[in-house]
Amino acid sequence: MSVPVCVLGLGLIGGSVLRAASVTGREVRGYNRSGVAAADGFDVSSDLAAVLRRASAEDALVVVAVPMTAVAAVLAAVAEHAPRCALTDAVSVKAAVAEAVAQHGLSGRYVGGHPMAGTAESGWAASDAALFHGAAWVVAADDGLDVEVWQMVAQLALDCGAHVVPASAAEHDRAVARISHLPHVLAAVLAAVGDDGGELALSLAAGSFRDGTRVAGTRPALVRAMCEANDGALLQAMDDAMARLSTARESLRDDGSLAEVIGSGHDARLRLDGLARHTITDLDFAAPDVMAQLRAAGRAGGALRAW
Amino acid sequence: MSVPVCVLGLGLIGGSVLRAASVTGREVRGYNRSGVAAADGFDVSSDLAAVLRRASAEDALVVVAVPMTAVAAVLAAVAEHAPRCALTDAVSVKAAVAEAVAQHGLSGRYVGGHPMAGTAESGWAASDAALFHGAAWVVAADDGLDVEVWQMVAQLALDCGAHVVPASAAEHDRAVARISHLPHVLAAVLAAVGDDGGELALSLAAGSFRDGTRVAGTRPALVRAMCEANDGALLQAMDDAMARLSTARESLRDDGSLAEVIGSGHDARLRLDGLARHTITDLDFAAPDVMAQLRAAGRAGGALRAW
Repeated sequence: MSVPVCVLGLGLIGGSVLRAASVTGREVRGYNRSGVAAADGFDVSSDLAAVLRRASAEDALVVVAVPMTAVAAVLAAVAEHAPRCALTDAVSVKAAVAEAVAQHGLSGRYVGGHPMAGTAESGWAASDAALFHGAAWVVAADDGLDVEVWQMVAQLALDCGAHVVPASAAEHDRAVARISHLPHVLAAVLAAVGDDGGELALSLAAGSFRDGTRVAGTRPALVRAMCEANDGALLQAMDDAMARLSTARESLRDDGSLAEVIGSGHDARLRLDGLARHTITDLDFAAPDVMAQLRAAGRAGGALRAW
Repeated sequence: MSVPVCVLGLGLIGGSVLRAASVTGREVRGYNRSGVAAADGFDVSSDLAAVLRRASAEDALVVVAVPMTAVAAVLAAVAEHAPRCALTDAVSVKAAVAEAVAQHGLSGRYVGGHPMAGTAESGWAASDAALFHGAAWVVAADDGLDVEVWQMVAQLALDCGAHVVPASAAEHDRAVARISHLPHVLAAVLAAVGDDGGELALSLAAGSFRDGTRVAGTRPALVRAMCEANDGALLQAMDDAMARLSTARESLRDDGSLAEVIGSGHDARLRLDGLARHTITDLDFAAPDVMAQLRAAGRAGGALRAW
């Protein structure tokens, strides 16, 4: 299954996939607009058509690692130059990408992916072969996906040092709205409300404010591309947050108590700290319901760590 | 001005004040219920009345470092056994403590304080002589406060390695509602909304969720004591957060855009990172308006680093 890996887009995530797959001995090629990674000795080019024609000739696994806003343009090129390649992506939403893939007639050999790692930094300069070590990498497990491509994508994730968490595209999008997109929105809100307190408030900011606003330092275009592409699930998560805030406000105003919100938040954080991810074993990829089995395992907090 | 320091309550903050003042050569005594710090060689006792009688005899600076919920009981003992001592505190709200101090007839030699440091840990075992290095330590600067006591409290803060930020009690409470209490409420809300996504969501949680929920790991009783004692200012900060969230929600739903909330949050975080705290110099404590001067300097982001 160790076909060459062709990464399209070499920012923080794509660049780190290129580096990590290379370290593990995979043949890697890449495309980015500036061609900057070539200066670091990688086999990359800014000629997207040429990169894709070569991927097609080599039967490479193509990894789309551009921001959501650039996905359609890249998929159009894939459809033109490498329509039969196994195809995955590293974009932070899954339903919207799957829809774009379908619109370009590429669903047959597409299995979406999302490595759950990142920093407030961005770009090739921040990319790191170790970025995915110990991280979760979601591999979409919807009915009807190509099982062979699924295993190729999972293998790439394992090669990069991640563990594979299977989930349907919709389940993924709902989950990341809660644990990735909402945190960015709340960090932005917190930063602005603190800033509204002026110099005095900012000069008193200590750990709780710094931690709570860290991701507000991320480049706004990246945060918006990620969050806005998942608007449906994010709206639900924002509604849930506003409902909890509103209940807490009433309780504080009427009873002087924050017992419920602080208690439930503490319990939740303890569950996060105590989370024991079990390892998924004994997979039978020949079984007709293998995708359903994978989804059930992911829903229960399981992860694939090896074959 | 280097009178002995008598710390009442030896949890994370009080214990760290005791250790830090001791390291700098100050004579330190302390009280806590368990007397645990005595085992580490400090001159502490669980006999509050005796500790206070000694403080009175030595004309010590008394530092109240118990949670807000225990402040009234400790002040009653101070009023009985050491009513003429210079008095400060390290509690995270200032107006409520000043009110309790007034109720116990102790306002004459009281100047409130609040060292802006902490960790998710608590208790004597977590206390650390270096906890306040580089931290802000608010010293209340309301009209009518005793200027000599003000300087004693500021000296203690400087001795502990902190810089002094002057502010009125009300200004302090409004500021910390935004940069300390609201972060705890939002962390709790975020943790609970993530947890509502079940095992799958928690198993995908990466840096943004871990950072955004870190302080939800703090002991709930401490968080509640801190936040609930500042309910007026915290309600305003929660309203501001809900208004921003609600506006962001409308914008995402109607226009698919989070431009305003993400952009303003990013700008605010950049201001935090770029904050240049200027040093307050040339103070004339004999001037009749010295408290107003101090407040103005604190409001502008200034800090006192030495005399």
